[in-house]
Amino acid sequence: MANLLWQKPGVAVDAKIQTFLAGDDVILDRQFFLYDCRASAAHAQGLQHIGILSSEELDGIERELALLAEDFRSGAFVLDEQYEDCHSAIEARLTERLGDAGRRIHTGRSRNDQILVATRLWLKDQLARVAELSKSIAKVALDRAEAEKDQPLPGYTHIQRAVVSSAGMWWAGWAEAFIDNAVRATDTAKLVDCNPLGTAAGYGVNLPLDRDHTTAALGFARMQISPIYAQLSRGKFELAALEALGGATLDLRRIAWDLSLFTTGEFAFVQLPAQYTTGSSIMPNKRNPDVVELMRACHASIAAARTEIEQLLSLPSGYQRDLQNSKGAIVHGFARGLMALELLPALLENLDWNDAAIRAAIDSGMYATDVAVEAAVAGVPFREAYQAAAIAKDSAGQGRTPEGSLAARVSPGAAADLRLDTLRARWDALV
Amino acid sequence: MANLLWQKPGVAVDAKIQTFLAGDDVILDRQFFLYDCRASAAHAQGLQHIGILSSEELDGIERELALLAEDFRSGAFVLDEQYEDCHSAIEARLTERLGDAGRRIHTGRSRNDQILVATRLWLKDQLARVAELSKSIAKVALDRAEAEKDQPLPGYTHIQRAVVSSAGMWWAGWAEAFIDNAVRATDTAKLVDCNPLGTAAGYGVNLPLDRDHTTAALGFARMQISPIYAQLSRGKFELAALEALGGATLDLRRIAWDLSLFTTGEFAFVQLPAQYTTGSSIMPNKRNPDVVELMRACHASIAAARTEIEQLLSLPSGYQRDLQNSKGAIVHGFARGLMALELLPALLENLDWNDAAIRAAIDSGMYATDVAVEAAVAGVPFREAYQAAAIAKDSAGQGRTPEGSLAARVSPGAAADLRLDTLRARWDALV
Amino acid sequence: MANLLWQKPGVAVDAKIQTFLAGDDVILDRQFFLYDCRASAAHAQGLQHIGILSSEELDGIERELALLAEDFRSGAFVLDEQYEDCHSAIEARLTERLGDAGRRIHTGRSRNDQILVATRLWLKDQLARVAELSKSIAKVALDRAEAEKDQPLPGYTHIQRAVVSSAGMWWAGWAEAFIDNAVRATDTAKLVDCNPLGTAAGYGVNLPLDRDHTTAALGFARMQISPIYAQLSRGKFELAALEALGGATLDLRRIAWDLSLFTTGEFAFVQLPAQYTTGSSIMPNKRNPDVVELMRACHASIAAARTEIEQLLSLPSGYQRDLQNSKGAIVHGFARGLMALELLPALLENLDWNDAAIRAAIDSGMYATDVAVEAAVAGVPFREAYQAAAIAKDSAGQGRTPEGSLAARVSPGAAADLRLDTLRARWDALV
Amino acid sequence: MANLLWQKPGVAVDAKIQTFLAGDDVILDRQFFLYDCRASAAHAQGLQHIGILSSEELDGIERELALLAEDFRSGAFVLDEQYEDCHSAIEARLTERLGDAGRRIHTGRSRNDQILVATRLWLKDQLARVAELSKSIAKVALDRAEAEKDQPLPGYTHIQRAVVSSAGMWWAGWAEAFIDNAVRATDTAKLVDCNPLGTAAGYGVNLPLDRDHTTAALGFARMQISPIYAQLSRGKFELAALEALGGATLDLRRIAWDLSLFTTGEFAFVQLPAQYTTGSSIMPNKRNPDVVELMRACHASIAAARTEIEQLLSLPSGYQRDLQNSKGAIVHGFARGLMALELLPALLENLDWNDAAIRAAIDSGMYATDVAVEAAVAGVPFREAYQAAAIAKDSAGQGRTPEGSLAARVSPGAAADLRLDTLRARWDALV
Repeated sequence: MANLLWQKPGVAVDAKIQTFLAGDDVILDRQFFLYDCRASAAHAQGLQHIGILSSEELDGIERELALLAEDFRSGAFVLDEQYEDCHSAIEARLTERLGDAGRRIHTGRSRNDQILVATRLWLKDQLARVAELSKSIAKVALDRAEAEKDQPLPGYTHIQRAVVSSAGMWWAGWAEAFIDNAVRATDTAKLVDCNPLGTAAGYGVNLPLDRDHTTAALGFARMQISPIYAQLSRGKFELAALEALGGATLDLRRIAWDLSLFTTGEFAFVQLPAQYTTGSSIMPNKRNPDVVELMRACHASIAAARTEIEQLLSLPSGYQRDLQNSKGAIVHGFARGLMALELLPALLENLDWNDAAIRAAIDSGMYATDVAVEAAVAGVPFREAYQAAAIAKDSAGQGRTPEGSLAARVSPGAAADLRLDTLRARWDALV
Repeated sequence: MANLLWQKPGVAVDAKIQTFLAGDDVILDRQFFLYDCRASAAHAQGLQHIGILSSEELDGIERELALLAEDFRSGAFVLDEQYEDCHSAIEARLTERLGDAGRRIHTGRSRNDQILVATRLWLKDQLARVAELSKSIAKVALDRAEAEKDQPLPGYTHIQRAVVSSAGMWWAGWAEAFIDNAVRATDTAKLVDCNPLGTAAGYGVNLPLDRDHTTAALGFARMQISPIYAQLSRGKFELAALEALGGATLDLRRIAWDLSLFTTGEFAFVQLPAQYTTGSSIMPNKRNPDVVELMRACHASIAAARTEIEQLLSLPSGYQRDLQNSKGAIVHGFARGLMALELLPALLENLDWNDAAIRAAIDSGMYATDVAVEAAVAGVPFREAYQAAAIAKDSAGQGRTPEGSLAARVSPGAAADLRLDTLRARWDALV
Repeated sequence: MANLLWQKPGVAVDAKIQTFLAGDDVILDRQFFLYDCRASAAHAQGLQHIGILSSEELDGIERELALLAEDFRSGAFVLDEQYEDCHSAIEARLTERLGDAGRRIHTGRSRNDQILVATRLWLKDQLARVAELSKSIAKVALDRAEAEKDQPLPGYTHIQRAVVSSAGMWWAGWAEAFIDNAVRATDTAKLVDCNPLGTAAGYGVNLPLDRDHTTAALGFARMQISPIYAQLSRGKFELAALEALGGATLDLRRIAWDLSLFTTGEFAFVQLPAQYTTGSSIMPNKRNPDVVELMRACHASIAAARTEIEQLLSLPSGYQRDLQNSKGAIVHGFARGLMALELLPALLENLDWNDAAIRAAIDSGMYATDVAVEAAVAGVPFREAYQAAAIAKDSAGQGRTPEGSLAARVSPGAAADLRLDTLRARWDALV
Repeated sequence: MANLLWQKPGVAVDAKIQTFLAGDDVILDRQFFLYDCRASAAHAQGLQHIGILSSEELDGIERELALLAEDFRSGAFVLDEQYEDCHSAIEARLTERLGDAGRRIHTGRSRNDQILVATRLWLKDQLARVAELSKSIAKVALDRAEAEKDQPLPGYTHIQRAVVSSAGMWWAGWAEAFIDNAVRATDTAKLVDCNPLGTAAGYGVNLPLDRDHTTAALGFARMQISPIYAQLSRGKFELAALEALGGATLDLRRIAWDLSLFTTGEFAFVQLPAQYTTGSSIMPNKRNPDVVELMRACHASIAAARTEIEQLLSLPSGYQRDLQNSKGAIVHGFARGLMALELLPALLENLDWNDAAIRAAIDSGMYATDVAVEAAVAGVPFREAYQAAAIAKDSAGQGRTPEGSLAARVSPGAAADLRLDTLRARWDALV
C-alpha cells in the first residue's frame, strides 16, 4: 500500500478505504508521469529564480528528473501501487536522492496545480494528434476524390436510392469533414493552451512565483491567470477536448456505417482487405468487418467519457476529489478514439469499389430529378415538372447513363464541379 | 391537417401517422421562418443569375418574401398546423401570390438544404448571443474584481476551509472563465459559418447554381463545398454549438452552486435581492433562491439536447428523417441556456456580501499554509515546514489577519496580484 | 402574468425573472391537472376525517373539483399563463367559489407533495400504457411468428449473411422482447405505486393526516412512508419510469433499423404500406420510410429526458427548485415514446415480405455451419469439421434448400422448434 | 499476440489492427472466466445427452474445467494477451489436455451465446450484491432511525432552513430509499434470469440441444427462448442492470451531498472518523472528506457505462462487434458502484452528530409553519394563518423548542410517527 504524503500521526488506515481512494490513479498516472517531470523541472527553475532553491539544488533536481524520466521510459522505474500517485512518487524520489532539495520542490505548489499542468500538457498533445490524424484522413479522401471523380455511386437519402452520385463526391464529403475536424481540434488546443502551474491549491500562494518563466519553459501560449479559474477549468477543458475528438469520431461513426452497409452482401459496393475482417467461431463461411464495427462503436466511448466528467462537474468552485475520476475518463476516451482514427487512413486507402454491384444499384428512377430540372431549365415551372416526372419516373431514365447524369451535375461542389482546389487550399492552411 | 407538397395521388393518409410525422415541426419552424425567407430571397437571386427566373419574377418573389416576413412578425401570418413546415408554407404563399414564379422557386433546391441554411443562420445568431452574454458576464466580474480586491472571502477546497481568499479572486475567476466562453462561442461560430444552400438533397443538382452569390448575400464566411458534407454537418454543427453553449452553462452551474451555498443560513455570505427569491406554499418563513437553482439546473437541459442529437446521429451518410428531431433539441437547449445566461449579469451586479459572516468563517487554521511557506522562505525545507505547521495549525494563525494574509499572496493571479489588466486586455480583444 | 400565491408585500417583481421561473410549467401542468383534482379531493376527505373541514365544506370542495375537472376537459377552463401552476389554479378556483373552504384546502399540504402525488398517478398511467402497448406488439409478433414459421429469411451477424433463418424466428424474437418490456413496465409501476401525499414539504406536518385514507382512495398499493424519501424519489422514480420505457424504445430502435435496411432497394425484403412513407420536395421518384426513421429516432428523446433528470439530481436531500425541470423531461419523453409505440402494432401487421428478394439473398455459403454440425454429429470433432467447411464453403451448399435448412434447425427456440406455446403462456400471464 | 481460432490461411495479420480488435478483452474476460467454465461444463453435459460427447469425454471435460478453474483462482493459469479471449483459452486448454474431446466442446455453440451466458451469470451475481448491500445500508439506517428519533436536525428545502426535522426522519428516508433499491435490484435480477446458452450465433443450430438441462444446471429461472432475442438482450440487459445499480448510486450521490454539506465548517453537523478523510499536499490544516466526495462521484461512472452501451446499441438485430465494448462498460461501472456501496454501511454507522451545531442552526423562523397549522386547527383558514405567520415569523417561535416541534409532528412518517415497523416489515420481506 502507498505511503501517504499527507498522513498524520495517530490516524488508523483502513485498507478498503485506501483502495477506494486510490482507484486506479497510479496506473492512470503513467500517462502523466513524464509531463509531471517536465513541469516539475520548470517549477524548480522558477523556485531558483526567487531564491527558494540554490543553483546547485536546481541542478540536482533537473539531473534527477531527467534520470527518473529515463528510468520510467526504460522500465527501470515502475509507477505502481507502492506510490499514492505520480506526484508523490516524484517528490519521494527527489528526496531520496537529494535530501533537502527534494523536500523543497513542493514549495508554492499543490498537487492541484501539479495534476492540472500535467493534464494540460497531455491534452495539448492529444489534440495535436487528433488534428494530425484528421489531416491524414482528409488527405486520403482528397486524393481518392480526385482519382475517382468519374466513378458512379448511387446517392442515398433515407438509405433509399435518390440520385446518381460519384465516388468523388463521397470522398470529397469526408475530406471537408476531416478538414473541419482538424480545425476544431486546433482551435480547442488553443483554448486550453494556458499554464495553470503556480496557482497552487486554487488560491495562489504567498510567494512571487515566476509564472512567466514556467509558462514560457513549458511552451504554453499564455498564463492561466486566475487560480480559481485554473480549478474551474479542470473537467471543463477535458470536456472541450473530448468534444473536439468527438467531432471526429462522430464522422468516423458515419463513415463506418457507410462501410458497414457497403460491405453487406446486398450492397456489395466495397471490398475490404482481409486483414480488416475476422472469422466466426462457429460459422465457417464468415468474413466479418469487425474493424469497421469497432470504429463505429468508438464514439460511444468518447460519449461515455463526456458523460462521466459532465456528471461529476455539478460542484461549487474549488477543488473537489470528485474530479479525480476525470482522469480515467480522458485516458480511456482518447485511447479508444485515437486508436480508431489511426487505423482509418490505411483502411480508406485500401478499400476497393465493386463497379458491377454499384452500376446494378443505379436504377432508372434515379434520373427523375435530372429530368424535372431539365424541364425547369426549358421553362416549365419546377413544381409542374416535378409532378410530371413523378408520374413518368420509371420511363424517364431511358437512354440515360450514370456518366451523363454525373457530367451534368454542375452545381458547385457536385460531381462535375467538386472544387477540390478550394478544399486543398484549406487543407494546406491547416497547421 | 397540412397539405402535403409531395403527396402522390391514391395514397391514403392516416391522421395518427401524419401527427407522428409532423411532430411539433411547424411550431418549431417559427424559429426558422425569417431565416428561411432571407435564404429564399438569396436563392431566387441566384436562380435569376442563371436564367431560371426573369428579373420581374425575382422582383415579385423578393417583394412577396418581404411582405410575408412582415406579416409573420406582425402576426398577420401565423405558421400553424395547416402547413407541413415553414418551407412548404413559403412556397405555397409565393405560388398563391405569384403563380409560376412561385412554382419556380424550388428549382435546384431541396428542403434538405433549405432547412440546413435556415438552421445555420439561426445557429450563428445563437452563438453570437452566447458570446455577447459571456462578455457581459465577464464585464461585471472584472468590475467587481477590481472593486472588491481587498474584500476577504474564505477559500475552499472540498468545501472545507482552506486558505484566505478574496472576493476579488472569486470574481476574477469567473471573469477569466467567461472570457474563454466568449472565445469558444466565437470559434464555434466560425466553424459553422459556411453556406450549405445550393447542395440540394445532398448530391448537388444539374444546374450551375450561383452559390458564390448566395454565400456572400447571406453573409457567410465561406461556401460549404461538399453537398455530402453539408448533410453530414446536420447534427454535427448543432452539437458543436450546444457544446459551446454548454461550456458557459457548466460555469453557470458552478457559480450557481457557489451562490446556493453562500445563501444558506449556515454560510450566509451572500444576500440576493428579493426579486431573485420566492416563497413557499406552506412555509411562511421561506425566501428561496429559486432563480439560482434554475440556473444551476439549466445545464442539464443543454446536456439533454446534446444527448438527443448525438444518439440520433448513429447513421450512414445522406439525409435521414431521424434528423428532424434535432430541431426541437436545439430550440429547447438554446432557449433554456440563453434565458439563464441573460439573467446572470444583473444578478451578479446586485448580490451583496455579508462581511460579518465572511469574517466569522475565517478560522485560524486557514493561515497554516502561509506559515509553512514563510518557514520555507526562511530556509526550512517545505516538507518539514508543512509537518511543523500541521502540528501547530490552531495556534499558528495567532495575530494574523485576513488582510495580512491577502496582501502576502503575491503569486501572479493571486489576491495581491490579480493581473486584471491582462484579463481586461483579453476582454477588449473579444469580438 | 401569474398571481403569486406566496408573494410577500413590498417585493418588486421582475417580468424577465418571472418568465424564467415559470418556464413552461403551466403548459406542462395540463398533463397533471386532472390528477391534481383527484388528489385534492382525497386530501380534502382526509382533512374532514381529522376535523379540519366540515362535511359541508368537503361536499363543496368535491363538487367544485368535479366541476373544475369537467370544465378543464371541455375547455371551459383553460390552464394558462394567468396561473403560476396547476396547484395554485385549483386553490384559487376553490377559494373563489367556496371562500374559506378553499382557503383551508392547503392545510397540511405543500405544493411539494401535491406535485409528487399528481406526477406519481400520471407515471402509473404512462407505465400501464407502456405495458399495454408492449403486450399489443408482442401479440402481433406472436401471431405472425406462428403464421410465418416456414418463411425463410437470411440470418445476419455483422449485417453479413450468416445462416438461414425464418420470418417465424424474427417475429418470435420481437415477441419475447416485448413480453419482457411489458413485465418490466409492470415491475416499475409497482415500484412507484406508493402514495407521497401527506408528506408536505418533505418533513411531514403537525397534524394527524389520514394518509391511510388517501392511499386507498387514490388506489395506491402502499404509503410512501418517509417524507424525506418522498422528496428523494422525485426524479428517481421519473428515471425508473423512463428507463422502463427506454427498454421498449431500445427494441423499437432495433426493429426500426431492421426495417430501414429491409426496405432499401438493395435488401428489398419488406414492402411498407404507402401511408408509412413520404415523398421528397425535389426528387419525384422517392417514397421514403419516414415513419420507420422517426421510430428509430425516438429512443434518443427518451435518452435525452433521462439525461436531463439525471444531471439535475446531483443535489442534497430535500426539495430543490431544479427538480421543476423534470416535468418537461417526462412529458416530452413519454409523449415521443408512446406515440411511436402506438403506431408499431399496425405497422407490423401490415408489412409484407418480398419472397423473391429474400430467396435471392440466401447464398450457398450460408449452409456451411449446417454442414459442419452434421459432420460433428457424424463423429468428426467440431473444430475439424469447421476447418473443412471453411475450405469447402461455396460448394457445401449444393443441393440444399432454405426449407431443408430450417427444418433441421431443431435446437429449442430455433426455426423448427420455436416454442411459441411457452411464449404465449408468458404473454397470457401479463397483467 | 493471440493465436486466432478463426484464422484462415493466407490472411496477413496486422499488429495494430489486432490490438484494436482485441481491446482489453482478455483482461476484462478475467471477470467472466469462471462463469464460462461453469457454463462450458453445462454445455458439455447437454452434448453428452444428445450423443455428441461420450460419458468418458464428458468426464474428462468436467475434470479439466474444474482444474482450470482452480488454476485460474490460484494464479497458476493466467488469462493474458497470448489468448484472444476467455472462450478460445478454454477451448485451447481442453484440446491440449483432451484432444478430440476438446475439439468437440464447441459443437452447437458460438462465442455469441458463450459470452451471453457468462455475462448473464455475472450480472445476476452483481445484482444480488446490489440487493445485499442495499439491504445492509437500509439496516444501519433503520437502526439509527430508531435510536435517534428524538435527535433534532434542521429540515431544509432549497438548502434553506425550513422546519424542524430529526435525525430519525433523516435515517428513515435513507432506509426506505435503500429498501426500494434492494427491491429493484431483485426485480431486475429476475428479468435477466434466463438462459441464453444454446442459441448459438443467434439463430439456433441443427441439433436438439438440451437447453432444459443447461437452464436447470446453471440455476436459471427460465430459458431465454428466442435466439434472436438472446442477441437483442445483449446490451439491453446490461443497461437494465446498470439502471438498477444507478438507482442505488443516485441515492448515494444525494446522501454524499448531505454529508459533504454537513461536514463543512459552516454546517459542522457531522464528524466523520479520521480514516474517511485525507490531508492536503500543501495545506497542513486540512482534513478532507475525500471518501464522501468519491462516493458522490461514483454515479457518474455508472452513467458513463450506460451512455457507452446505449450509444452502441443503435443497430439492427443480430450480433455486431460493436457490442464487445459493452463488457468494459459493465465491468467498470459495477466495480465503481459496488466499491462505493460497500463502504457506506460502516461510514453511516460511524458518523457522529454534533448536537451543539445542530441546535444553533434551528432558528425561530423554522416554527412558522407549526404556528400556521396550529391556527388552522383552531379554525383560521390555512391561507390566512399562513399570511399571519409570514408577518410574525421571527417572533412566532418564541418559547418553542425543537423537541416540542418534533413531538407535534404526528403525520404518518413524520418525526413523531416514523412508522419504522412498516419499513422493518418491508425490510424483512427482502430476499
